[in-house]
Amino acid sequence: MKKFRLPLKIMFSDCDPAQIVFYPKYFQWFDVATQRMFNELDMEWSVFWPSNDIAGLPIVDASAKFMGPSRMDDEIEIESWVDEWRDKTFIVRHNVINKGKVIVEGQEIRAVIVKDDTNPKGISAIPIPDYLKEKL
Amino acid sequence: MKKFRLPLKIMFSDCDPAQIVFYPKYFQWFDVATQRMFNELDMEWSVFWPSNDIAGLPIVDASAKFMGPSRMDDEIEIESWVDEWRDKTFIVRHNVINKGKVIVEGQEIRAVIVKDDTNPKGISAIPIPDYLKEKL
Amino acid sequence: MKKFRLPLKIMFSDCDPAQIVFYPKYFQWFDVATQRMFNELDMEWSVFWPSNDIAGLPIVDASAKFMGPSRMDDEIEIESWVDEWRDKTFIVRHNVINKGKVIVEGQEIRAVIVKDDTNPKGISAIPIPDYLKEKL
Amino acid sequence: MKKFRLPLKIMFSDCDPAQIVFYPKYFQWFDVATQRMFNELDMEWSVFWPSNDIAGLPIVDASAKFMGPSRMDDEIEIESWVDEWRDKTFIVRHNVINKGKVIVEGQEIRAVIVKDDTNPKGISAIPIPDYLKEKL
Repeated sequence: MKKFRLPLKIMFSDCDPAQIVFYPKYFQWFDVATQRMFNELDMEWSVFWPSNDIAGLPIVDASAKFMGPSRMDDEIEIESWVDEWRDKTFIVRHNVINKGKVIVEGQEIRAVIVKDDTNPKGISAIPIPDYLKEKL
Repeated sequence: MKKFRLPLKIMFSDCDPAQIVFYPKYFQWFDVATQRMFNELDMEWSVFWPSNDIAGLPIVDASAKFMGPSRMDDEIEIESWVDEWRDKTFIVRHNVINKGKVIVEGQEIRAVIVKDDTNPKGISAIPIPDYLKEKL
Repeated sequence: MKKFRLPLKIMFSDCDPAQIVFYPKYFQWFDVATQRMFNELDMEWSVFWPSNDIAGLPIVDASAKFMGPSRMDDEIEIESWVDEWRDKTFIVRHNVINKGKVIVEGQEIRAVIVKDDTNPKGISAIPIPDYLKEKL
Repeated sequence: MKKFRLPLKIMFSDCDPAQIVFYPKYFQWFDVATQRMFNELDMEWSVFWPSNDIAGLPIVDASAKFMGPSRMDDEIEIESWVDEWRDKTFIVRHNVINKGKVIVEGQEIRAVIVKDDTNPKGISAIPIPDYLKEKL
């Protein structure tokens, strides 16, 4: 699987009163890291979604193990990759690396949804398209 | 176990371009819901932490299953409770209820840490104090 | 002018490493406070906007003076009111009150926009509708 | 005055249900842009603050004029500079540039505070140190 790297410098605004990164922020960065994977493959969501009738890549499950903190001015890196393709979902893993150590192990399970007027919700999950598996 | 309820009205600022709550926001609310549990028991962190030499209740693991969305103006409720006491961690569960259905099942595993000059990190995790188990 | 009050308890997640509320958070609360004004008048944006062909109430100017901090567990109140109706904009003022003192004075200038296919941007600002002036 | 540039790519997580950047986010970026100015001059806050007894650079006033939106995948740039040194405050200006146009004009007024046990608040604002004026 291709691995993608997102370097980040921890800013004042990322930290909480305990002077470490506030944990929900990592999930926001996982979302950013996943979006960056698509950007790096020239599949910007603002273009790629409408041109493939995709309504979104919603999260069905997210989790993270926190083994150590990040502090202001730390230079971290988020290493991200698609770890598994299932029928209608795919798993993106995110390792947060700080000073050479993996300090957070994260995981998102995402679906691919399209607009669907036959569904009362207006959307449906579709089998993961082959072109996604090839690209990522 | 005592159950705690946090009612929330979904605001414009909680939602993403897909016009549903942005998923990391739920983790922020889990943090808020956990803090509210302490508030309701008259254990406000700003008082309770220093008076018990506690440096914080850091997250060691967080996860959530997302079964349905919340939209602007929905009135949701987060039902929270301590589900399990382990030696040095405790598990807080959070059910997000929207229109009578559980749409998100979340879980935080937290430790209790105190300042400790004998530890190179300056802090140590301690066994869960009995008074916490009794109160919660 | 009608005044509206939004009570808030400052949470851990609202504060920055200096252990006070991070200043952009006040602007987020101003947005929430403005939306609440409409909610209290039974003009929930999710209903009121589409039923009046409104595409949004965008900010054209926002400002705040910060005279004092808020800390975790403080119980603050945001007092909000429409201070002035101009031709195509209106001014919402927000006073943040902590322990009896106004600690932040904020102001938003907002427009009312509707969808407009004759405009290359797809939207147009309209004169403030009279029903808004009467209600607020 | 030295000008500093912070390039940003607008992500999904930056945008609101109107599919444009949520306005308080710009204020968060102003804070980041100000911090970056110090980073670029090798005055990282985590080192520079304690070594100069500085407790922080709090905001006393913040404002912005919004002339146009930013959307997902836009590549914007924040141009920042110290525009004026006053006795005990300094003014940082931030221009947000999108597709060659200034779409947001922002301004922060900040003070420099140090710990001060003789003050009941525990801190005092000091005259802007000369080394700051020279560096910035």
